[in-house]
Amino acid sequence: MVYAAILGYGTVGSGIFEVLRTNQKIIDQRLGKALRVKYVLDLREFPGDPVEEVLVHDFDTILSDPEVEIVAEAMGGIGAAYTFVKKALEAGKNVCTSNEALVAEYGVELMEIARSKNRSFLFEASCGGGIPIIRALNESLTADVVDEISGILNGTTNYMLWKMETEGCEFAEVLKEAQAKGYAEADPTADVEGHDACRKIAILSSLAYGKFVNYKEVYTEGITKITPADIAYAKKLGRKIRLLATSRRTGDTCYAMVSPFLVGDGNPLYGVNDVFNAIFVHGNMLGDAMFYGSGAGKLPTASAVSADIVEIAAHLHESLRSDWTSEKMPLQEIDQVTGRFFVRVKGVSDEEIRAVFGPTDLITIEEVEDEYGFVTMPMKQGDYKNKAAMLGSRVVSMIRMKD
Amino acid sequence: MVYAAILGYGTVGSGIFEVLRTNQKIIDQRLGKALRVKYVLDLREFPGDPVEEVLVHDFDTILSDPEVEIVAEAMGGIGAAYTFVKKALEAGKNVCTSNEALVAEYGVELMEIARSKNRSFLFEASCGGGIPIIRALNESLTADVVDEISGILNGTTNYMLWKMETEGCEFAEVLKEAQAKGYAEADPTADVEGHDACRKIAILSSLAYGKFVNYKEVYTEGITKITPADIAYAKKLGRKIRLLATSRRTGDTCYAMVSPFLVGDGNPLYGVNDVFNAIFVHGNMLGDAMFYGSGAGKLPTASAVSADIVEIAAHLHESLRSDWTSEKMPLQEIDQVTGRFFVRVKGVSDEEIRAVFGPTDLITIEEVEDEYGFVTMPMKQGDYKNKAAMLGSRVVSMIRMKD
Repeated sequence: MVYAAILGYGTVGSGIFEVLRTNQKIIDQRLGKALRVKYVLDLREFPGDPVEEVLVHDFDTILSDPEVEIVAEAMGGIGAAYTFVKKALEAGKNVCTSNEALVAEYGVELMEIARSKNRSFLFEASCGGGIPIIRALNESLTADVVDEISGILNGTTNYMLWKMETEGCEFAEVLKEAQAKGYAEADPTADVEGHDACRKIAILSSLAYGKFVNYKEVYTEGITKITPADIAYAKKLGRKIRLLATSRRTGDTCYAMVSPFLVGDGNPLYGVNDVFNAIFVHGNMLGDAMFYGSGAGKLPTASAVSADIVEIAAHLHESLRSDWTSEKMPLQEIDQVTGRFFVRVKGVSDEEIRAVFGPTDLITIEEVEDEYGFVTMPMKQGDYKNKAAMLGSRVVSMIRMKD
Repeated sequence: MVYAAILGYGTVGSGIFEVLRTNQKIIDQRLGKALRVKYVLDLREFPGDPVEEVLVHDFDTILSDPEVEIVAEAMGGIGAAYTFVKKALEAGKNVCTSNEALVAEYGVELMEIARSKNRSFLFEASCGGGIPIIRALNESLTADVVDEISGILNGTTNYMLWKMETEGCEFAEVLKEAQAKGYAEADPTADVEGHDACRKIAILSSLAYGKFVNYKEVYTEGITKITPADIAYAKKLGRKIRLLATSRRTGDTCYAMVSPFLVGDGNPLYGVNDVFNAIFVHGNMLGDAMFYGSGAGKLPTASAVSADIVEIAAHLHESLRSDWTSEKMPLQEIDQVTGRFFVRVKGVSDEEIRAVFGPTDLITIEEVEDEYGFVTMPMKQGDYKNKAAMLGSRVVSMIRMKD
């Protein structure tokens, strides 16, 4: 018998409880031993809920019970979640979590404690919800050097952009709708400003490149400035606007950024709609691969946490492999990153545009008058900035291109 | 030091040799020990090629060397490949392979020998080339009950259908082009008649459902009858024709089939073009997930075999987990499977169609006269057959629908 404890009985925590109960038989069969939830920690009561039998209110009950070898953190935040996870690891328990904020902030420290105790700290569900991207990086792409990860890592913003695209509505309108549906929180900042995606790409890059990428250093831009006119331009270009979290390694360094991109239809991320997430990976031998699925939601996320629990249950007294080290990855200046840019300008003659940016086609749409857009040649972002500065406030907006 | 041997220095074998050499440093680092190729078996000579140093012509050299703990089979076929793999496993060596024919035919027996010796028989590259789908099934979806797998598992036929769709050419024409490009073999039967995809879905279903699915019992239909008119109808329906290998579990049984399908744009497989492969999986907790990548090609396939080698090197003396048992999975009769069908008919009045199939919309295209198509309501394939029989030779063709 292997005993697990779940910290928190909210959306994810109750989902884990449900997954382990519903699929108990097949999980026990796969493990060749019984896996049971001994405790669920929550301050609230849940009268009539099956969790009642195992509900506790004091973390010390879990911490001091040597039978509990696996702790699944599902409280969220980086306050008590951090304290409890750290204590559990220090007490020689294995821990898994879906909490990207905790992993991005304290992952290095928590992984080192786990290693020093010969235990595991796993976080499959922290990036891409149910998509098994972390296990793919740790256990499948082991013969490859990964040189790019680009993903749609936030379901809320993908839903919003997809709605703007299919229904032609404004950002504010679609945000209200997303909030009404429970996809966006009352304070949507973490989603719409890209902070959530930023923490996830920092985690994935750390795993893929084997060095610690600090999320605080990742250039991050959200989707709040995207307008129906941008969407109309995207359609004219045969592209879709998606909030991408992307990083690329070159030699011993990498860049990482979160920003809206105009994605071309040759890119597998082009077809990712609704609240889905997808992660594109390029390996030096594997070439292109993509992993797609539910990026959030109670059961998909709980499925991924439960898979961590099952993997830990099969390897209780070892530290499962991950390339992530505490060595810091030096990030390239974003101004040094090369790309193409879609730029909208107002009151600029074609001669002037071409004098500044070189030969280009002008793109107009019916929806807005007195302006046009164009796509630049590939150039460094720093060079783009300098050129754009020459046009001053006549630049309406810029969105990056992703082929 | 861990030693591996590669059987065969053709496309895949030379690819494995290249992957392990190119990424030697990072692989050694990940393993915490050196992994080297001690022998490559091939009857030919390769003057000037780095393989010369390790080239041998006699399998017994490999078999009798106790230092060789991993054998990667890359010869293809089920003759010598089977004999050598069996001998290697019986001698207590671990084996991995990319050979779907070998796995579909002898997988049960070879896995049992491996288990009895406490060794592993892995075959990540046998389905979906570089896509890490088998490791996802074995190691990631461990808290789920998988109830559907549907995939584009053959790159050659996907390329052909995509070319017919984008260039409007005939099957025979696009086959010649695929052969000229090296995508299709001189005898393309295994690809275009669906036999290759059939073996792969049998393997994936066996892994996902934990019982042995015999590929010989899988209903299999190829793409040779697909015409430009079918493609035109597909466009009219907003769909794409793809050769899908699909299986679905219901209770203790499942069905499995390979056939062209009209895929709707809400399905993530809709966007899979060119020679790419993709595998859709539905888990009872995870929901929808999809894995996408290069289904064939030297380096992607070799990357997956090499990942097997790395995993084995980390677990030399244990039998790595897989749900696949020797217990036989009873397959549902294909006539009992429910679906919708797109049917083309000639010389049938709307009244007669509606009398036989019930209410439906008639679809016409400019490309063909004197006929129309329609989509049936959901019904069992057996019922469809009975109804179609009432129209006799006036049924031009039928393609299944996939939403």
